[in-house]
Amino acid sequence: MNGHVKSEFHNGVTTIEFFHPQSNSLPLKILDELAQAIHRAGNDDETKLVILMSAGEKVFCSGASFDELASIQTIEEGREFFSGFAHVINAMRTCPKFIIARIHGKCVGGGVGLAAAADYAVATEQAEIRLSELGLGIGPFVIGPALERRMGLSAFSQLTIDASMWRSAQWAGRKGLFAEVHLTTEGMDESISKLANTLTHYDATAMAEIKKIFWKGAENWDQLLQERAAISGKLVLSPFTRNAIMKFREKKKN
Amino acid sequence: MNGHVKSEFHNGVTTIEFFHPQSNSLPLKILDELAQAIHRAGNDDETKLVILMSAGEKVFCSGASFDELASIQTIEEGREFFSGFAHVINAMRTCPKFIIARIHGKCVGGGVGLAAAADYAVATEQAEIRLSELGLGIGPFVIGPALERRMGLSAFSQLTIDASMWRSAQWAGRKGLFAEVHLTTEGMDESISKLANTLTHYDATAMAEIKKIFWKGAENWDQLLQERAAISGKLVLSPFTRNAIMKFREKKKN
Amino acid sequence: MNGHVKSEFHNGVTTIEFFHPQSNSLPLKILDELAQAIHRAGNDDETKLVILMSAGEKVFCSGASFDELASIQTIEEGREFFSGFAHVINAMRTCPKFIIARIHGKCVGGGVGLAAAADYAVATEQAEIRLSELGLGIGPFVIGPALERRMGLSAFSQLTIDASMWRSAQWAGRKGLFAEVHLTTEGMDESISKLANTLTHYDATAMAEIKKIFWKGAENWDQLLQERAAISGKLVLSPFTRNAIMKFREKKKN
Repeated sequence: MNGHVKSEFHNGVTTIEFFHPQSNSLPLKILDELAQAIHRAGNDDETKLVILMSAGEKVFCSGASFDELASIQTIEEGREFFSGFAHVINAMRTCPKFIIARIHGKCVGGGVGLAAAADYAVATEQAEIRLSELGLGIGPFVIGPALERRMGLSAFSQLTIDASMWRSAQWAGRKGLFAEVHLTTEGMDESISKLANTLTHYDATAMAEIKKIFWKGAENWDQLLQERAAISGKLVLSPFTRNAIMKFREKKKN
Repeated sequence: MNGHVKSEFHNGVTTIEFFHPQSNSLPLKILDELAQAIHRAGNDDETKLVILMSAGEKVFCSGASFDELASIQTIEEGREFFSGFAHVINAMRTCPKFIIARIHGKCVGGGVGLAAAADYAVATEQAEIRLSELGLGIGPFVIGPALERRMGLSAFSQLTIDASMWRSAQWAGRKGLFAEVHLTTEGMDESISKLANTLTHYDATAMAEIKKIFWKGAENWDQLLQERAAISGKLVLSPFTRNAIMKFREKKKN
Repeated sequence: MNGHVKSEFHNGVTTIEFFHPQSNSLPLKILDELAQAIHRAGNDDETKLVILMSAGEKVFCSGASFDELASIQTIEEGREFFSGFAHVINAMRTCPKFIIARIHGKCVGGGVGLAAAADYAVATEQAEIRLSELGLGIGPFVIGPALERRMGLSAFSQLTIDASMWRSAQWAGRKGLFAEVHLTTEGMDESISKLANTLTHYDATAMAEIKKIFWKGAENWDQLLQERAAISGKLVLSPFTRNAIMKFREKKKN
């Protein structure tokens, strides 16, 4: 496939990196591999901490793959595609290790969802965010619970309604999405490295118990996010969305 | 009656304007007309977006009408009056269209509730807010759920306890009540106009589905806000409140 | 015992002060007296408002007593010790009077919990906060619900994970823990005095009804915080924690 998901283990930390040549967009294949990699790291006795990052230096994640959105023909295919995000978020939720997200650049749609589902997100000032879903005739249904939990209803609804607006990394920090916002990539990496070093020396049982209380109340997300995937899977077939995706891809080609 | 509620339709947007000569305060008649206007806009197939605003250039809304508060004689009359706010908030909640609130000036009590129940509030720096209820021996019971949902418990409780304190529009923005705070009325109107133009071109079904997830968890508000209206309706008859209202009206006269 | 809990009544206000020579740390005896003092003030007809403060000019509260943590030998003793915090928080929750916390200096662990469980916390810029629990192999389990309710999940989880990091009083203010942050102790005391004077002239029934809606949804905390105390009580016996406490006390001695 185009792109990759790689896991590396070092000093108690499993670092999971994803990549896709189209601005780190996410086709179902990468979503599935991501969910599996997170599961594996969660079950690995040596792993005390997970770091989630993407390759490259520009966009952290541009959300759903437009090629795949364009290829969806039935409600069932739609639901299946959006379930890919549900599986990743639920893997992050149920992983008994803390997950630090390293956000080096822009986040769009599902990419914002990854940051929100992490237990601690560290970003640079390049990490502007946007929920462009509504402009495509869909909505942030699957990632919604993760965003609302992390940022509160107001920030979530502002991002959703003002779908063409980029919000700064500082804004995302104030709203709780990013725990830290650094001026430079070096600053971010230094801080992550220091925190990772500290956390890997903490008690694993205590961290697993804490993670459970962080996610208390989200026990129904296996089902909830599937229901949300079904809503997106239906909307994605609307003439509005078909047209929006076609226009977007033509613009890209030219 | 004194004051009015007007609806105007233009380019997919229904704009609902209320007015009352006493600083846009809200008697039951205006509350009822407001709830009905919102219902109608919600059911109107041509309407893709609702804008809620008030007339004049000073106070956006000063909350409950003091004349009506003063005239309440029984618990049942009290409950009925405060139900007026419950009906407006529930109409906003169940309206399948996004509601943008245009907040051009100060908001007090129930006026803050209107801003909070909107899906997206755009304000100017003149839009200071205050919950003066406790100073009158009552409390923000009916609007409480809308405020807590929108701003979180801390901002809601700070406003409630420190009932004599005006908080700036910027503060309200940081706490999530206002999605945007503009320096000038022109800036606010330009931004609303641009956003309205964008939203009216989006997919109506997608917006209706998104609105549903924004309000998930508030399905019991028909009953909850009635219970809250009953608490206010009882407190408003206390000697403390009788006295506070009398003093306030005397001050106004002089 | 070392330290004290004192209650003083003046002009409608009961001021409860605690003190411990080791940086206002909290042994079970002080926690129990604190819970009782809050109960008494809640039931006292003359008391319209409670102010919670600590003695001294440096640390507001350094959290659990290390001496007592070190002396815990069984799961049951552990649960019992952490129940002390549960009793204080539940006393604050069920007290029908507003509780203002006066935070004159640093808050650690359980001390942050006291600030969070108050209805309105006023602080100075010296009031930096930290949740150091995880560094000791335990976690902010008992105080967690109070912190999450007051600051939201993001601020709570950031504090918990980055357990060695002090956050400024300004940060705590932005996140909702402190309603006011003053430059000086004098400024803080003046503001508390003014607010107390206002609140004691408000209607007691209205305030009691408002307090109920602030705490709506926390009715299960008697049980929930006991469950949380049991988690902490078990973790505190781990070799990791034994070792961390031993190191900390040796450092103090030298």
